[in-house]
Amino acid sequence: MVATASSSKISKIVNARLLLDHKIVQDSYLWFQDGKIIHPQNLFFDQHRDADEIIDAKGALVVPGYLDIQINGGYGIDFADNEGSLEKIQDDINTVAKGLLQYGCTAFCPTVVSSAPEVYNKVLPLLNKRKGDAKKGSEILGAHIEGPFISHEKKGAHNQAIFRTGKNGVREFDEAYGPELMKGSEAVSIITVAPEIEGVIDVIPELAKRDICVSIGHSAATISEAETAVTKGATLITHLFNAMLPFHHRDPGMIGVLGAVDLPVPENPLRHPAASNTSPYRNKPDPRPFYGLIVDGVHVHPNSVRIAYYAHPKGCVLVTDALSALGLPRGVYSLGGRDVEVDDNGAAYIKGTNTLAGSTITIDQSVRNFRNFTKCTMVEAIEAATLHPAQVLGISDRKGTLNPGGDADLLFLNDDLEIQRVFVYGEEVELHKTK
Amino acid sequence: MVATASSSKISKIVNARLLLDHKIVQDSYLWFQDGKIIHPQNLFFDQHRDADEIIDAKGALVVPGYLDIQINGGYGIDFADNEGSLEKIQDDINTVAKGLLQYGCTAFCPTVVSSAPEVYNKVLPLLNKRKGDAKKGSEILGAHIEGPFISHEKKGAHNQAIFRTGKNGVREFDEAYGPELMKGSEAVSIITVAPEIEGVIDVIPELAKRDICVSIGHSAATISEAETAVTKGATLITHLFNAMLPFHHRDPGMIGVLGAVDLPVPENPLRHPAASNTSPYRNKPDPRPFYGLIVDGVHVHPNSVRIAYYAHPKGCVLVTDALSALGLPRGVYSLGGRDVEVDDNGAAYIKGTNTLAGSTITIDQSVRNFRNFTKCTMVEAIEAATLHPAQVLGISDRKGTLNPGGDADLLFLNDDLEIQRVFVYGEEVELHKTK
Ligand SMILES: [Zn+2]
Ligand SMILES: [Zn+2]
Repeated sequence: MVATASSSKISKIVNARLLLDHKIVQDSYLWFQDGKIIHPQNLFFDQHRDADEIIDAKGALVVPGYLDIQINGGYGIDFADNEGSLEKIQDDINTVAKGLLQYGCTAFCPTVVSSAPEVYNKVLPLLNKRKGDAKKGSEILGAHIEGPFISHEKKGAHNQAIFRTGKNGVREFDEAYGPELMKGSEAVSIITVAPEIEGVIDVIPELAKRDICVSIGHSAATISEAETAVTKGATLITHLFNAMLPFHHRDPGMIGVLGAVDLPVPENPLRHPAASNTSPYRNKPDPRPFYGLIVDGVHVHPNSVRIAYYAHPKGCVLVTDALSALGLPRGVYSLGGRDVEVDDNGAAYIKGTNTLAGSTITIDQSVRNFRNFTKCTMVEAIEAATLHPAQVLGISDRKGTLNPGGDADLLFLNDDLEIQRVFVYGEEVELHKTK
Repeated sequence: MVATASSSKISKIVNARLLLDHKIVQDSYLWFQDGKIIHPQNLFFDQHRDADEIIDAKGALVVPGYLDIQINGGYGIDFADNEGSLEKIQDDINTVAKGLLQYGCTAFCPTVVSSAPEVYNKVLPLLNKRKGDAKKGSEILGAHIEGPFISHEKKGAHNQAIFRTGKNGVREFDEAYGPELMKGSEAVSIITVAPEIEGVIDVIPELAKRDICVSIGHSAATISEAETAVTKGATLITHLFNAMLPFHHRDPGMIGVLGAVDLPVPENPLRHPAASNTSPYRNKPDPRPFYGLIVDGVHVHPNSVRIAYYAHPKGCVLVTDALSALGLPRGVYSLGGRDVEVDDNGAAYIKGTNTLAGSTITIDQSVRNFRNFTKCTMVEAIEAATLHPAQVLGISDRKGTLNPGGDADLLFLNDDLEIQRVFVYGEEVELHKTK
C-alpha cells in the first residue's frame, strides 16, 4: 500500500535539545514525515493531525547529520581503486557508505585522488548523487575529484606521473575526467585544482557554471594567485595548511586568503559563508571561500586550527580526508595505487616517508577534537560539519540544518558530542556499538 | 605664583567625539586640570566651579595619545649609538622625543638593539622614565632592550658577534646590561629575549619580578618553547611574524601562541589582554601575550595582519620599529653600528641584502594602515596604539585611555585618523604642518 503524503506516518521528537537557527533550543519539538522535517503549524491547520509516533530523545542534543566533503574511502576500500568488476566496485562503495552511518556521517562526497582517464570513466558513474538510506548507507553528494590539475611541488600522496595542465581549457578537463564532468554536480560535486597551473584559472568559471564547487589546493599559489582564483569563482580551499605554501609573513600564500579584505562582494551568495564579525563586508555574504580542515591533531597543529577558525569562523568545514584504513587497525593500505602506512595515532604517511597521505579520523571525532582545540561552542563545532559543508555544495535548503523542508537526517548526541542515535530520512540506523 | 591643585586652571573640551569605554561618545565633555583628566562631578560638588578654558574640538575625534613601545630612533639618530659626549646623546634623545609629538606619539619606549655592556652603561641611564612635555618632547616610558639574549638564526639586523646566553642566570643579564637593570621598569620597560637560548627561560620570572615586561622574539622557538615562556611570565611577542619561525601547520612556532588554549589563567591580570570572544577563558583575562605588529605593509603582509588580529584582537599592539631614518629621505643610515638602506617605500634593509632592519613608518600612519588592512572599527584601530600598549606596560591607569585620573595626553583626529591637534599633560603641542 502506498500512503499519500498527507496520510503517511508523522513522527515527533520530544525531550530534545534542538539545534535550530544557530541556537540550542529546549521546549520545542521536531516533526518529520516522509523523510522530511515538517512545520507543525501546517499539520494542525491543514490536516488537523497530531503525531503517529513519539520519539523520546531523553534530553539528547538533536542535530543535523554530519556531511563529509572529503573522504577517500575506508574499510580497506579506496574510491580511486578501479580493480575488479563494476559489481565489486559498487559493493565496495556500498560498504563504505553503510559504515559511515555509524559515525553520524549521513552524506558525503567520495573523493578520488589524481587518476588516469580510464579510472574516472569506470569509477565516477558509480559515485553520482544517490539518496541516503538507513539500511543501504550514507547519501552520496557527488564525487570530489582532487587533481590531476595540481602542483608537482605540493603533490602530497598523489601520483604526479599523471598530473596535467589546463592549457587547452575546459576541453582538457573533459578529456581528463570523461563525460561524467558534463553532468555537473549530479556527478561531480567538487574539483580541487591548483590555480597556478597553466590554463586552470580560466577554467574555474566554466566549472562553476556546471554547478561544480571549485576548490583550490595541492598548490604552491601565492596570495595573489589564490585571490585571483577566488575572484574567478573558487569557493573552497582544500585541507587548509596541508599541501600548500607555508604561511610566510611577506607572502602568506593560500592560507592568507583567510585574511583577504579586498575581494569583491559575491554575486551569488549561495555558496559563500555567511557574514561574521571578521568578514570584510559585515552585512553581506563573506567573499572569502570556505576551507576544509583535517582536525586529527596531526595534519594541522591544534593552535593553527584555532587561529584559522577565529580568523574566519563561518568558513570552516571539517573534513576527515580519511582513507582506506579508516575503520581498520594500523598497517599498510592503498591510496590511488600507492602504499600508505598508518601509525599508532591513526596518521597515514606515504610508506617510508613523513609525507602525510590522509587520516583515519572519523567525522564525529573531528567535531569533538575541533571543540577541544578551539573551545568553541557546541553549536559552532556542529555547524562546521553540517551547515557549512551544506553551504559549500549549495544544498543548505535540504541538508545541514533542522529547518522545515529539509531531509530528516538526524543525530542524537550526548554532551560529549558522542553519537547516540542516527536517523536517515527519518529512518533509524542500527548502530553496532552503544557508547 | 604656584597655584594649588584646586585653584589651577580647569579646561573643558566641547564638540568632541570622545573615545570612552571602548566607544565613540558624542554629547559629552572632557575636563582636565594640572595635566590630568578629571571627573566633572568632583568639580561641581567639591569646588562649585566651571571650566576656566573651553576648547572647541569642532567635531573632531578626541582620543588618548599614541604609545610606541618599539622605536629605535629617528631624524638620523639611533638610540643604540654611544658615540660622542653624554650631552650630545642627551640632545639626540630630546630631538627624537620632540619629533615624535608631531605624529601623535605622546609616550614611547626607546629601543636599543643588541649592544655591548659599555653601550648600555652609557645610554640606558639617559633613557629612564621621563615625563612628557608639549615643548620638550614625548614621554619616555623606560627603554626597550632587544637582545643580546637572542637567536643567531633569527638575528635580523642585530650584530650577532655580541649575542650571549643566560647560562649563569640573572647575573648574566645584570652583567650584560649593567646596574640599570636593577632599577626595573624605572629604567627598562621591556626586554626582548629568545626563550630557547640557554638559561633564558629561568630568568623570565626574575625579570618579571622587577616589573619589566618580558617579550619573546628574535627567536627560533617552537610552539612548546614559546608557550613555556608565556607560562613563566612573558607577556609580549616582539614584532610578530618578523624574526621568528614561519607559521608551519605542524609546528606553528611563536606565531602559534595566538592559537593557544591551554595556558593557565594569569595570576596577575594587569599585564594581560582583556577577554575577547577568542580567548580561552571567555570571562577571565586572556592568558595569551600581547603581540607587536609592524604595520607598514612590507614587514607583514596585510592579510597576515588581519589573520593575527582576528585570532587575538585584544592582544594587538601597533609598533613602528622605526629607525634613525624616520623623518628623513631614502638613503643609508645606522642601526646599532650597522648600515641600513631605506628604499622608496620606506622599508629599511641591511645594506646589500633583503633582510628587513626596521621601518620608517610613523605611529599615526600605522593606525591608519591597520584600519585599512583589517577593516576594523576606528575604536579598535586606536586602542591598538593606546590602551593595549599601556596594558603591556601595566600603566593603563594613567596612559592609553581618557579615564579620569589619567594623564591628559590627547589627540584630535579627523575621520581619516589624521592628526589635527596634540596635547601633552594638557598643554598643546605646536604642530609643524597642518593636515
Ligand atoms: Zn589532498
Ligand atoms: Zn627586532
